[in-house]
Amino acid sequence: MSVRAVVMPGPGLPLELREFPEPEPAPGEVILDTVAGEVCGTDVHLHHGRLSGVPYPIIPGHVSVGRVAAVNGVTHDTLGAPLGIGDVVTFLDVWGTCHRCEQCAVSGQPNRCPNRRVYGITFPLEEGLLGGWSEKIRLLPGVHILRLPESVTPERLIGGGCGLFTGFAAVERSALAMGDTVLVQGSGPVGLAAAAFAHLRGAGRVFVIGDPPERLSLAGLFGATDSWSLAGTSPGERREVLMELTGGRGVDRVIEAAGQPGALAEGLGLLRDGGRYVVAGHYTDTGALSLNPHVLVNRKHAEIVGQWGTDLRHLVGALKMLDRHGDALPFERVIGARYPLERITEAMRDVETLRVTKAIVVPGQG
Amino acid sequence: MSVRAVVMPGPGLPLELREFPEPEPAPGEVILDTVAGEVCGTDVHLHHGRLSGVPYPIIPGHVSVGRVAAVNGVTHDTLGAPLGIGDVVTFLDVWGTCHRCEQCAVSGQPNRCPNRRVYGITFPLEEGLLGGWSEKIRLLPGVHILRLPESVTPERLIGGGCGLFTGFAAVERSALAMGDTVLVQGSGPVGLAAAAFAHLRGAGRVFVIGDPPERLSLAGLFGATDSWSLAGTSPGERREVLMELTGGRGVDRVIEAAGQPGALAEGLGLLRDGGRYVVAGHYTDTGALSLNPHVLVNRKHAEIVGQWGTDLRHLVGALKMLDRHGDALPFERVIGARYPLERITEAMRDVETLRVTKAIVVPGQG
Amino acid sequence: MSVRAVVMPGPGLPLELREFPEPEPAPGEVILDTVAGEVCGTDVHLHHGRLSGVPYPIIPGHVSVGRVAAVNGVTHDTLGAPLGIGDVVTFLDVWGTCHRCEQCAVSGQPNRCPNRRVYGITFPLEEGLLGGWSEKIRLLPGVHILRLPESVTPERLIGGGCGLFTGFAAVERSALAMGDTVLVQGSGPVGLAAAAFAHLRGAGRVFVIGDPPERLSLAGLFGATDSWSLAGTSPGERREVLMELTGGRGVDRVIEAAGQPGALAEGLGLLRDGGRYVVAGHYTDTGALSLNPHVLVNRKHAEIVGQWGTDLRHLVGALKMLDRHGDALPFERVIGARYPLERITEAMRDVETLRVTKAIVVPGQG
Amino acid sequence: MSVRAVVMPGPGLPLELREFPEPEPAPGEVILDTVAGEVCGTDVHLHHGRLSGVPYPIIPGHVSVGRVAAVNGVTHDTLGAPLGIGDVVTFLDVWGTCHRCEQCAVSGQPNRCPNRRVYGITFPLEEGLLGGWSEKIRLLPGVHILRLPESVTPERLIGGGCGLFTGFAAVERSALAMGDTVLVQGSGPVGLAAAAFAHLRGAGRVFVIGDPPERLSLAGLFGATDSWSLAGTSPGERREVLMELTGGRGVDRVIEAAGQPGALAEGLGLLRDGGRYVVAGHYTDTGALSLNPHVLVNRKHAEIVGQWGTDLRHLVGALKMLDRHGDALPFERVIGARYPLERITEAMRDVETLRVTKAIVVPGQG
Repeated sequence: MSVRAVVMPGPGLPLELREFPEPEPAPGEVILDTVAGEVCGTDVHLHHGRLSGVPYPIIPGHVSVGRVAAVNGVTHDTLGAPLGIGDVVTFLDVWGTCHRCEQCAVSGQPNRCPNRRVYGITFPLEEGLLGGWSEKIRLLPGVHILRLPESVTPERLIGGGCGLFTGFAAVERSALAMGDTVLVQGSGPVGLAAAAFAHLRGAGRVFVIGDPPERLSLAGLFGATDSWSLAGTSPGERREVLMELTGGRGVDRVIEAAGQPGALAEGLGLLRDGGRYVVAGHYTDTGALSLNPHVLVNRKHAEIVGQWGTDLRHLVGALKMLDRHGDALPFERVIGARYPLERITEAMRDVETLRVTKAIVVPGQG
Repeated sequence: MSVRAVVMPGPGLPLELREFPEPEPAPGEVILDTVAGEVCGTDVHLHHGRLSGVPYPIIPGHVSVGRVAAVNGVTHDTLGAPLGIGDVVTFLDVWGTCHRCEQCAVSGQPNRCPNRRVYGITFPLEEGLLGGWSEKIRLLPGVHILRLPESVTPERLIGGGCGLFTGFAAVERSALAMGDTVLVQGSGPVGLAAAAFAHLRGAGRVFVIGDPPERLSLAGLFGATDSWSLAGTSPGERREVLMELTGGRGVDRVIEAAGQPGALAEGLGLLRDGGRYVVAGHYTDTGALSLNPHVLVNRKHAEIVGQWGTDLRHLVGALKMLDRHGDALPFERVIGARYPLERITEAMRDVETLRVTKAIVVPGQG
Repeated sequence: MSVRAVVMPGPGLPLELREFPEPEPAPGEVILDTVAGEVCGTDVHLHHGRLSGVPYPIIPGHVSVGRVAAVNGVTHDTLGAPLGIGDVVTFLDVWGTCHRCEQCAVSGQPNRCPNRRVYGITFPLEEGLLGGWSEKIRLLPGVHILRLPESVTPERLIGGGCGLFTGFAAVERSALAMGDTVLVQGSGPVGLAAAAFAHLRGAGRVFVIGDPPERLSLAGLFGATDSWSLAGTSPGERREVLMELTGGRGVDRVIEAAGQPGALAEGLGLLRDGGRYVVAGHYTDTGALSLNPHVLVNRKHAEIVGQWGTDLRHLVGALKMLDRHGDALPFERVIGARYPLERITEAMRDVETLRVTKAIVVPGQG
Repeated sequence: MSVRAVVMPGPGLPLELREFPEPEPAPGEVILDTVAGEVCGTDVHLHHGRLSGVPYPIIPGHVSVGRVAAVNGVTHDTLGAPLGIGDVVTFLDVWGTCHRCEQCAVSGQPNRCPNRRVYGITFPLEEGLLGGWSEKIRLLPGVHILRLPESVTPERLIGGGCGLFTGFAAVERSALAMGDTVLVQGSGPVGLAAAAFAHLRGAGRVFVIGDPPERLSLAGLFGATDSWSLAGTSPGERREVLMELTGGRGVDRVIEAAGQPGALAEGLGLLRDGGRYVVAGHYTDTGALSLNPHVLVNRKHAEIVGQWGTDLRHLVGALKMLDRHGDALPFERVIGARYPLERITEAMRDVETLRVTKAIVVPGQG
């Protein structure tokens, strides 16, 4: 029997649907039947060649849900729950963090470990079915596997996708206090997740600046109390309203999920003195911005922190939140369309043009 | 009897040495005979009109040491030590923090309280002798007064001046771990103090980038293990050496005490992934810089924090450090020259042209 | 016209309802018509003489809501909202924090300032109507006054009472991460508030151990996912169930709101390695406990922290949360009965015997 | 050729000097010629059977310095320095942290990972020469190896031994601010290291309570400003003096390195309100203490934290500090005597009776 998967041969080259032999699990490995995966902005960036160090050709698809099809010596998931054929699971897309290098073991920055590899991004095709755009996914020894709680549907998890975990991490890093006013810049998957988690973590008001308007409507479902269209309002107008809403002080926390350099200058300007700003949306290089360090950093006594990548604790935490507060995290509503493997090219176009907020891939339904 | 003081009538106007009536302490007040004060970079900025909201004419001079000349109902210093005529003291130049506004009482940012006033900067002449360039200084009710430990000479304290407290605050805010490599950008009073406190707080290597060369020699006395001349080396050369010295990782902490926007881009580029960067030198607006948020913040998972102002805990902490580790804080060596009130204009010129690192004012020796 | 107030002459002495002359506001003062106050456990302790330094006779009642009856030069509340006759407000019961002593200004511990005084506890009767069990309350210059948001009823606020702010503070101090399992020990007002704020701040499961059973039912309304009767289960039984529910690891955070020394040993035993334990319920001295520091602190790598008192940021934060998440904080449901001033003695007995969870005092309805 | 090592067959049984075949390195392994090791308090506890889960017989000796005798595929140390035959190294005694379990990957507590094993403690003899009381030590694949900086002698490192790293970790966990007064309880190896690192990390005064008097003299070399003999003074006397020295406030930080339950009650009583207490000396179970949670935790708003174990960052940090501030860490002065393998029993007795502060083992000099 054979397995179909989508291959991205290189930047700018057409995606190809290819057939591969049925994979067998080596010792310590698990094979999944893919239930659902995502097409996210990173995949678009991958296709444009905007990430460095990608070993094309690759099978894209980093966050996925699958059903255990075969195991070789693996009996429990990462948290100790029994694992068997047919169980529905997800897994941390980051693999191979060494825990031995200075970043891992001394600086406490495993998210910057040079040995990390990521499913769907930094595994070359020649190493196997190591991406989610495939009917089957091979989980290498050591992959962190987590059984999905019964209350969490694959649609809800994949509707959130990698943005769900990034949003979770950004909110934790914002260190907001209960009652704080939080501004989220961006209304894509990361922005919506950030708004939702800020809400669930005890924010007072949650503001969202983004586009298009349908996404701002969605933001209301995810805890936003107020939102503004980026195109429909000017920075000056937004500033006026936000300052009025915050008694002239500015917002306590900003989470940048916009990926536009200009967002920083606007957001820092709206931050209260002594506030904290989390840069979570600049996963690719979109250029430089002009910034006045006296006004926006020093005199403001501000904190500006980057959030790069996520790790197991974010995945576990986000799953606990989905299990407990799922109604406040209705990510299945974000899904614009479901695409079988044959239609991935269309999915990519829909994501790039913002026609859909989230495109999910359902390999078994082609 | 009369008292002489230097008045700054306004930006660009000549300083004037004037005579005033001998001040009497109102209830809760203390009058000091000024022992020594400083001419610092802020005073130069004041004279150029670079700070906003200054109620000219003023008597400049914010950090000072004096001898108690008269008291009206004050019997103890802030920490409870008995206070009497003839005691040598210093005091916190910030007065009037309200502890009631949202910045003070909710956000925990008294350093951004809009009610604060600062000796030598935001007190108009008409309110009295509220600056250090005067033979006598009037301490309003509530000024935080601290008796100088016997081990701390006025020269050592004023040799450090306000930079001593800013450097102390910047190092605390850097949250460095023992053994961390710290880069200090700038070798003026703030930079030297930052180097010294980083050393005393357990840094491993302490790097300084600055100028002129004599200041770099001084830096060695204050704990710097390596230093580079800004003019004598290129950013590329510095990068090459620093990366080699840090095993290619970059430095763990950077303290910016340069006041040049360009310093941020260089310093962030030298910071290790997950490191922390303290902006402490941008007390005046010297313009904007170009910054790439993907490379320098997000991907680096960096922390960039501003340090604005100092408060009593920095003053108390710095005095404890001077008392205990004074040999490692030989700020009297920084003093380039001692100026009586008649020669303040000359002192200002010497500070502005970097001819002296620190100019101290000795009003009683005119 | 005269004003009635309840006086506690001393420990063990009968409460007395007395008449006082109508108060006039001095400059900077505000007079309130009391809308509602509380009888809380502290009041019972006061009557038993269990707090030291109380200047009997006093007018008890620390957390109160009132309507502005008269002002003398006060035009805005602490956050800058306009304040006028008829406005419904609450205020921080702590007054006189000096912001000058070493605790305030150096150690950052204003909650341990020796100059603090507390409405209803440390003001002697001779200084005026400085407690809530009175038809009118005199707010001294500097009292932090806050207008109640329209969405917050006096009943909801006073139903929470001081426990509302203590619970808020305890949850902030627990530093819980989203998804963490939190155990609250105690189901009185502090425990219920702690459960509610843990829930609103993103806890996963929230466990409550307490009594009587009706309070555990209430706990479910406040976010508890599971609860156990202290009397109805043994420590061993609870341990077995909690360990099973946490995969054998123990809970991530414990908030002690029980006021029984034995709670610490049980709670620390249930805490996971590296967890954090907040002691918030030991406001009076109920004796010592036996504790094994090897097992419960050192080997466990635990953090045990006390939470003493609250300040303005807790009051402001709690009001923001009531405004935004009021449905999850239905403290009016906690109110067992409303007592006019004539029936305060009965209210005290009902609180002491746990017949009511919260007794509120309505001075205007006698 | 054969190798000699000391075997501890079980609790209470005589130590045995045995011969083993020369070890060969398997792939990824390194064999060391032991230069020096330590006999520490833990070894005494091991011999008394006070630690649970020890797989006797074992070869004791956890912190060691050796010279690389053979390698199999290992070319660099953990930080990337080239590694070759003859290099002098030390290594982290903890091996096998899984980085996959909930403690490691979710709770951020790798020091509580159940998969950890420790050289000299939890490796049974049958697995090889995995302890320091041996002429050769086998380093398993993945052991964190660090080349000794040239400035650090084996005597200095082993004179500190495991106490050096525990003291380093305890001081980091104390989160002291520059100028803080630190009390260290205990003057054994952990206490001396804690005093030294507190001094190097910017403490103001450093107090030590301990015994015997010779150790208190040593404490002065390690940064203590004042010290008291536990036997020579009463708790009341110490309290009187310490309160006077701290202006009646108590000390800012306490590091417990005494291993006596009674130390906690005394130390918490001496801690200032809002201070932080690190329990670092209770590595074995010496019983329970009586503690009043109202007085010592809740009302004091105290933080009490355990410090269990150390990891690579402590080892790396401590080596950096030895390299940079070696003169302030003269641990070779602590060494009471050097013992060849034949005299280990004598070394154990000398450590247990406190005849020597630190006994070092020099296997190659038998």
